[in-house]
Amino acid sequence: MIKYPKGSNIPKSRTKSINKSNLGQSLEEDLNQTNRYYRETNKALVYKKPTPVQVVSVDFPKRSAAKITEAYYKLPSTTDYNGICQGMPIDFEAKQTANKTRFPLSMIYDHQIEHLRAVDAHGGLSFLIIRFTAHDETYFIEFQKFDHELRSTQRRSIPYSWFVKYGNLVERSYVAPCHYLPDMVKLINERKETTYE
Amino acid sequence: MIKYPKGSNIPKSRTKSINKSNLGQSLEEDLNQTNRYYRETNKALVYKKPTPVQVVSVDFPKRSAAKITEAYYKLPSTTDYNGICQGMPIDFEAKQTANKTRFPLSMIYDHQIEHLRAVDAHGGLSFLIIRFTAHDETYFIEFQKFDHELRSTQRRSIPYSWFVKYGNLVERSYVAPCHYLPDMVKLINERKETTYE
Repeated sequence: MIKYPKGSNIPKSRTKSINKSNLGQSLEEDLNQTNRYYRETNKALVYKKPTPVQVVSVDFPKRSAAKITEAYYKLPSTTDYNGICQGMPIDFEAKQTANKTRFPLSMIYDHQIEHLRAVDAHGGLSFLIIRFTAHDETYFIEFQKFDHELRSTQRRSIPYSWFVKYGNLVERSYVAPCHYLPDMVKLINERKETTYE
Repeated sequence: MIKYPKGSNIPKSRTKSINKSNLGQSLEEDLNQTNRYYRETNKALVYKKPTPVQVVSVDFPKRSAAKITEAYYKLPSTTDYNGICQGMPIDFEAKQTANKTRFPLSMIYDHQIEHLRAVDAHGGLSFLIIRFTAHDETYFIEFQKFDHELRSTQRRSIPYSWFVKYGNLVERSYVAPCHYLPDMVKLINERKETTYE
């Protein structure tokens, strides 16, 4: 919330036009807020996994909580987000880049790609959510499409134009600043039809 | 591994009778090994979530990894394990107690119970794996059964005899020291039949 000085005469119409309440939030904050909204309204049960930490030493001070005094970040063995929607296991990775023209593949680890492939193989739905901060755009990409592109390119990045063409632009709403539910539900329905045919 | 003194004349037959390779492992170690085996053989895709840690301060020494110098354990917001088996979302909590006669309910947080209920409501399969170390027995319990008992008791614990009566004793094998797959698959099939009827 921008705090204007008392007696500010900035016309109200200028502050009305855009809902700035969610601007400047990171993709992670947007997803946390969105997932909380989905949980509270029973639309989906999605959580972010904790960041894995290798604890080396812990102090146990009297009458207070255990204090970790030495620890290191570990590489995550899976993706950041997973959960359930309409009985379907879902799993995704979310990344944001400041790069204007391409998404560097170094941002996703090989074993995360392997994990997303495994989710699909076990009958779950896997996808990616990629934000290009320079364009203020967030794309929802079915992992199978992304994987097809991965397998057919030798490059270390995927161009922004590819996401514009093959991804779905995710809408931003006040309650769900990264509202990926419609794209997810559409794919879930497609998969269910394939299974039951 | 018990180290006998050199020249020990304990007859070999006494050490042969039991496969001790997995004895003395914690339930968590047993489950990690079991889940790895299930993943490698494509039977199920189950991971333990990292323990959540609240990081307070981090050092960034030159030329080496970021070092967390102050952090605290947080209460987990969900359960420890989740994944996919045969297209079904699965989610469970695992606990071991040294108590001979009862399982203290203080070992499971209210919000974990709420989470397991939510998993069921969203069409997933939730269960518990409870080990009584004093009996060297591990039980698989469908969460719906456990929840029914929870709602009908005022006690702060559930007797060991309840688990003997309503739980399924989990087998131990060399490759899967906590082999809960058969119980899980049985329930998955029951749920699928109910859905398609």
